[in-house]
Amino acid sequence: MAAGKTDHTLERLIFFSDAVFAIAITLLVIEIHPPHLPHGTSSNQHLAALAELIPEFVGYFVSFWVIGAFWMGHHRAFGLAAHYSPRILGWNMALLNVIAFMPFVSGYLSQNEGQSVPTVTYCVVMTIAALLNYKVNKTATSPPMIDEAADPQAVHYVQQRSLSVLLGALSAVILSCFVPQFGQLGLITIPLWRRMLTRWSRPALADAV
Amino acid sequence: MAAGKTDHTLERLIFFSDAVFAIAITLLVIEIHPPHLPHGTSSNQHLAALAELIPEFVGYFVSFWVIGAFWMGHHRAFGLAAHYSPRILGWNMALLNVIAFMPFVSGYLSQNEGQSVPTVTYCVVMTIAALLNYKVNKTATSPPMIDEAADPQAVHYVQQRSLSVLLGALSAVILSCFVPQFGQLGLITIPLWRRMLTRWSRPALADAV
Amino acid sequence: MAAGKTDHTLERLIFFSDAVFAIAITLLVIEIHPPHLPHGTSSNQHLAALAELIPEFVGYFVSFWVIGAFWMGHHRAFGLAAHYSPRILGWNMALLNVIAFMPFVSGYLSQNEGQSVPTVTYCVVMTIAALLNYKVNKTATSPPMIDEAADPQAVHYVQQRSLSVLLGALSAVILSCFVPQFGQLGLITIPLWRRMLTRWSRPALADAV
Amino acid sequence: MAAGKTDHTLERLIFFSDAVFAIAITLLVIEIHPPHLPHGTSSNQHLAALAELIPEFVGYFVSFWVIGAFWMGHHRAFGLAAHYSPRILGWNMALLNVIAFMPFVSGYLSQNEGQSVPTVTYCVVMTIAALLNYKVNKTATSPPMIDEAADPQAVHYVQQRSLSVLLGALSAVILSCFVPQFGQLGLITIPLWRRMLTRWSRPALADAV
Repeated sequence: MAAGKTDHTLERLIFFSDAVFAIAITLLVIEIHPPHLPHGTSSNQHLAALAELIPEFVGYFVSFWVIGAFWMGHHRAFGLAAHYSPRILGWNMALLNVIAFMPFVSGYLSQNEGQSVPTVTYCVVMTIAALLNYKVNKTATSPPMIDEAADPQAVHYVQQRSLSVLLGALSAVILSCFVPQFGQLGLITIPLWRRMLTRWSRPALADAV
Repeated sequence: MAAGKTDHTLERLIFFSDAVFAIAITLLVIEIHPPHLPHGTSSNQHLAALAELIPEFVGYFVSFWVIGAFWMGHHRAFGLAAHYSPRILGWNMALLNVIAFMPFVSGYLSQNEGQSVPTVTYCVVMTIAALLNYKVNKTATSPPMIDEAADPQAVHYVQQRSLSVLLGALSAVILSCFVPQFGQLGLITIPLWRRMLTRWSRPALADAV
Repeated sequence: MAAGKTDHTLERLIFFSDAVFAIAITLLVIEIHPPHLPHGTSSNQHLAALAELIPEFVGYFVSFWVIGAFWMGHHRAFGLAAHYSPRILGWNMALLNVIAFMPFVSGYLSQNEGQSVPTVTYCVVMTIAALLNYKVNKTATSPPMIDEAADPQAVHYVQQRSLSVLLGALSAVILSCFVPQFGQLGLITIPLWRRMLTRWSRPALADAV
Repeated sequence: MAAGKTDHTLERLIFFSDAVFAIAITLLVIEIHPPHLPHGTSSNQHLAALAELIPEFVGYFVSFWVIGAFWMGHHRAFGLAAHYSPRILGWNMALLNVIAFMPFVSGYLSQNEGQSVPTVTYCVVMTIAALLNYKVNKTATSPPMIDEAADPQAVHYVQQRSLSVLLGALSAVILSCFVPQFGQLGLITIPLWRRMLTRWSRPALADAV
């Protein structure tokens, strides 16, 4: 197979992944059903009907940014890859499988806000996604897939980012077991983990570069 | 990172955005449920059932062209960009977040046609989309993203278009607060704003070119 | 704007159109709800439940091939285009608007099989799609969009195909007004129209080439 | 038509197919409705509600990997093609038609787990997909579509893989007629068939290369 063809195969894999991410992220909204009130309903009742949907809106926005964060990480990692390797195919498909499942866990959580089982389920599914995401991004930014001209610091950043997402998801699982109402807040720790990882690894990176 | 790779990253961002726009615009239709009438229903009853859906059809077509107009603006702006910049990633994702939310507000409005809260909600969400759209298109058509060979008049046109969409959305919000039945009509002012902006800025542009 | 950039804009338009076609064609299936029978239902009852869905299956397959035929025509026409022209943007969006609406008319027809209003509605919407399709394909295969190196016979074939789809859709409208049960069969005349158009125009084409 | 243009047509066909595969695979999840339990429901009841959905989860994952396997085969086959041929268009569309239909048969099976008719229906539809898949992949890896520089062993592998999917689907049909509960397990025979085909054909291949 010619080299140009191999890269084309990589592009098609990226494309297929993008499409699944895009569809999953856009399907989230169909779990929220617009209230249909009889003609002549007062504005206050309309506002009350919207207010009841607040947990679903919050769930929608959190899940949108969670899938968006996974996509952005995938985007960054594959931006550093230049070659296709068949060994990424299965892992990437497994990641997409979990991403495509997110509209279900997101809908389940937002319709049963603050309950223990739905919150833990959501956070566990997210952790599985974060694990697969780590594996996929690590594979895409390692030989034989990585672009030989890729900046080592960018590679390091991508891998650390994937790790911080995983640590944040684990934090969310632990938090959701004790305080289900705030389980999703565990995700807020992702940037904290990233900062901590950056601080720890800076000396090591300095050696590597 | 090699230059060719950077542009590839831009292409993938555009691709992902296109996919979200395309899915959101196509999902609009699933909020309209086809009437299922018993066998032997007369043609007049069928026509009456379709007539009842007229507000939903109108809502569908308006929302299709609203999302379509946002996509066409995005298309024009990124047609002038040649380089990727990570600073657009978050804003673009926020824009997509609001676009992907449109099937909800569109369904809510068309099922409660002419009511105050749904109309104001629709127009406010549109204004948020127009604000983010302005920011994204401005970023895509400014350094470091812009193609150095881009025609300054085309750049000016894209930025003014984004501004006129924003002014039109604000007009729709104001109108919908007073006359909800005609709130969406505020959007018709978009071409008027564009013409006015063109007239005002022509001397300034002449100086720039 | 550089020439390379212009063609990129054309590619993005094609891409967006492909995505809308693909989503509309795949959404058709969600109008068919799988029967959920109690545990212990006999196989005969299962077969009866499936048999009841036959009109929906037929409607699904016909609509799949109708959207597929429009996509294949679009595919052929844009395969001959090499340049972007802003004048195609609005017409193409209008075509996509009607294509994205097809899951509704398809669901409406298959849930009310053989009735007059749903059949005429379906065929009229198809005719509007065929008209817009003709306009879009004609624009894509005419200057300034057409590839200067395009084979005139291929151009002629694409334009004639679009015309035969339009004539077939009109035949379906007329047929559905008189014999609603067989309205969709009017579409079968598309290949006949194509053959007739080919016969009539061969001498003219011979002169042109 | 210029050669570059022909290949572009091939790319667009691949793109459209990818989009349909991606949408069908992501739509699978919307057949599973998240349980909405009253506030104050105990965790045990939540777990029981999730446990009831286990057949739907299993169905979702099996169907995801089935569509994923078809996509991966398509991906491999078209990775070896370098030229477009109009003769693949219709067969590819027929394959996509069956793939887009899978959310229906998958939902039907998972809502009526272990019953005879839904299992046989699922396996028969899969066999039709496998037949069309075999035809499409064979066409893409034969002249005039195949890349002249393609490795004969890779071509052989793709064609054999398609054949083993077909044999596995046929095994699933036969198994589902006798033991509906384990019908889907017939798919597990796919890797066994592949191994057997590899063993049988190795001498023949050695001669060919």
